[in-house]
Order: sequence, then C-alpha cells, then structure tokens
Amino acid sequence: MNEIEIWTYDWVPAGPRGLVRDLRLRWACEEAGLPYTVRTVPFDGRETNHLSRQPFGQVPYLNDGEVAIFESGAGLLHLARKSEVLMPRDRVGESDTLQWTIAALNSIEMVTVPYWFLSMSGDADNALRGWRDQRLDQLEQVLGEREWLAAGRFTAADLLMADVLRVLKGSAFDARPATAAYVARLTSRPAFRKVHADQIAQFAAADDARAAAG
Amino acid sequence: MNEIEIWTYDWVPAGPRGLVRDLRLRWACEEAGLPYTVRTVPFDGRETNHLSRQPFGQVPYLNDGEVAIFESGAGLLHLARKSEVLMPRDRVGESDTLQWTIAALNSIEMVTVPYWFLSMSGDADNALRGWRDQRLDQLEQVLGEREWLAAGRFTAADLLMADVLRVLKGSAFDARPATAAYVARLTSRPAFRKVHADQIAQFAAADDARAAAG
Repeated sequence: MNEIEIWTYDWVPAGPRGLVRDLRLRWACEEAGLPYTVRTVPFDGRETNHLSRQPFGQVPYLNDGEVAIFESGAGLLHLARKSEVLMPRDRVGESDTLQWTIAALNSIEMVTVPYWFLSMSGDADNALRGWRDQRLDQLEQVLGEREWLAAGRFTAADLLMADVLRVLKGSAFDARPATAAYVARLTSRPAFRKVHADQIAQFAAADDARAAAG
Repeated sequence: MNEIEIWTYDWVPAGPRGLVRDLRLRWACEEAGLPYTVRTVPFDGRETNHLSRQPFGQVPYLNDGEVAIFESGAGLLHLARKSEVLMPRDRVGESDTLQWTIAALNSIEMVTVPYWFLSMSGDADNALRGWRDQRLDQLEQVLGEREWLAAGRFTAADLLMADVLRVLKGSAFDARPATAAYVARLTSRPAFRKVHADQIAQFAAADDARAAAG
C-alpha cells in the first residue's frame, strides 16, 4: 500500500491550532487504520507558495500514490472509498454517507463559516444568523431521532459533520441538546482525541524553530 | 436500468425559474444519456412537507432504484459514478473530478451564495465581497490556463462549477475574461440549453394550474 501523505502548514498561530482541516484527514486515517505521514508547506507565503497543489492557497491536500487531491471534503471521500470503516460498500449505505458528507459541506458549513466570518467583527446577530439557526434547528431535528447521520453507524459523514459543528460557539448548542450530545460523542472518540492532540503538539513544536529562525 | 427520478417543486415564482438546482441533475442526465423523469413535491408547505426526503426542506432529491439521495452535489456525484461521460474511470481522473466538484461546493459556492444573500438587501459591497473576489480571482487564474477544470476534458466538475458561476452578476465577470468565457462555453452546450428551457417551461406551465386552484 502506498503511504498516504497529508499536507498541512509548517506552523500556524495559536488560535487555529486544533482547528486546521488536515485534522479531518488525520482523523479518517486513524479511524480506518490507514498508515499516513503528515508533511508540511510553509505558512509564510501560503497565498502563493503551493498554488500548483491547492489553487486557493489552503490546506490540506493529500497524496496517495499517483492520486493528488485537494479540498478536505474530497480527500475525505477519497479515504472513505478505501475503507469500509468510513463508508459502507453497498449502494444504499454509500449514497447515504455521500449525501450527509455533502450536506455537511454545502448545507451546514456553507452558512456556519460565513456566519463565523461576519461574527469575527463582533456582530453575533449578523445577517446570516437566521439562516444559520434554521439549518441548525433542522439538523437538531435529525439528530434527535438517531445516533448517526448515515447508514445506522459511524461513517465519514459523522466525522465531517462533527468537525463542522465542534467549532461553533457554545450558544449554538444551548437549545440543541441532540446536536451537543452528538458533537460530544464524536469528539470523545479516541481517534479524534489523538489527532487533535497531535495537531496542537505539531504546531506548538514549530514555535521553537520559528523563534530560532526569526 | 432503473429510471432515475429527479424531484423538484411543482411550481416556483418567476425569479428562480431556470435557477432551481434540479437543473444540475437534469443536465448531468442529458450529458450522460441517462433516462430520467422529473417529479414534483408541492412548493406550498415546502418547509415541512418533504422533510423525510430532504431534511432541510429543499430540492432536488433523486431516486435511482433502491438509492434515494439528496443534496444536488451528492446526486451529481452519484450520477457521475454511473457514466464515464461525467467522470473518468481511472483513479487520477476520478479524484481530479472529485476535488473540483467539492471545490465548487465548498470553496466557491460557500462564499458566492452567502455573498448573494447579503447582496439581496442592496449591499453589493458587503463584508463578504473581499473573500468572494479573492476566490474568483484564484479561479480566474486556473481557468486562464486550461479549458476544463479536471482530467483535461468536460466532467461533472465543469457542469457544477458553471452552474455555481452562471448566477453571478455580470460585474463578477468584467475583469475575469477566462471565467466569463468558461461560463459561456459551458452554458452553450446543448444539454444545458435543453434543461434550462425545460425547467422554465415546466414552472411556467404550472402557473395555469395554480391560478385555477387559487
């Protein structure tokens, strides 16, 4: 088997540590038992220094033999195709996992990330609040009725949805107990805890090298 | 082969005609030569009348034999797996198509749709303008260098990216000639023109039934 390479930055400031999206791919590999190596591209100059690998200047991207793939959602689906742990092999289970993976990216994150962007200027009651709340309420209804989003068991869709949701402020969970319990359940998995700690440790270790170079 | 069912609303107001996302699935079926039927759910009561099929109250969703799938992006990837016209069968071509399909959903549409949402209140210079412009500029750079996003030929990724981009105001294209040419090229394809006309005609025909019922 080819060793999977997960590419991220060589350093990030304290704020985003534990939140960089390479975590999604690390988490998937840990759940599936797929061997992987984390490799890095310089944070400084990231807007242009790896456009040939990621046309929006972001991370992560992934190498797997001859396959080179960017977009964390695409990398996750690529890994899911390699392991039944992440996605069932039957058509119904696979399409169920696929639809909820895309829902995390295009129905939930499409509003939660821009909402967060607007909130950074201090306006939690911004113009995207109503739309965000509606989507979270709809998701709360789903999660109130079942433990996992797709196929009656843990899949890549849960991994991604939990990663999308865990970054929200606590107020998003106050009146949504099923969502809060879901996120707590997913982020207490040993694979998540390991890769979360790994990412924070990696970026913290880079502080010294950066200080020495600076 | 099971007949594919594409579900949309039974009617929409004039504004969104030609823009409802069932178009993405119709377009894919036409490109691939996959037989399909368009079926409808009532527009009135859409917030709750089909939550068992689409948990956010939206359209489209798709039936294909035992597979039932929502999220236009997921339906598109499902169809792409059925036809090499939409996605190459080799691992490299397939992952290239996958990454650009996800990029349309999670790197471009993630900002263009919320930007449009904020613009509806008349503020084209809203807080998401800079982010949107950056992403469109990065995409312009890519499209300046090649005709198709993935695998050196038309794929589902082009279909989706063109559908995401075509709804933007003309000002988005003024300084981005490669993007403008790309959208023009994709939307001049016979399959797009057919399904665009079909969707508009279907909703217009429903005006009469609605008037009679009202």
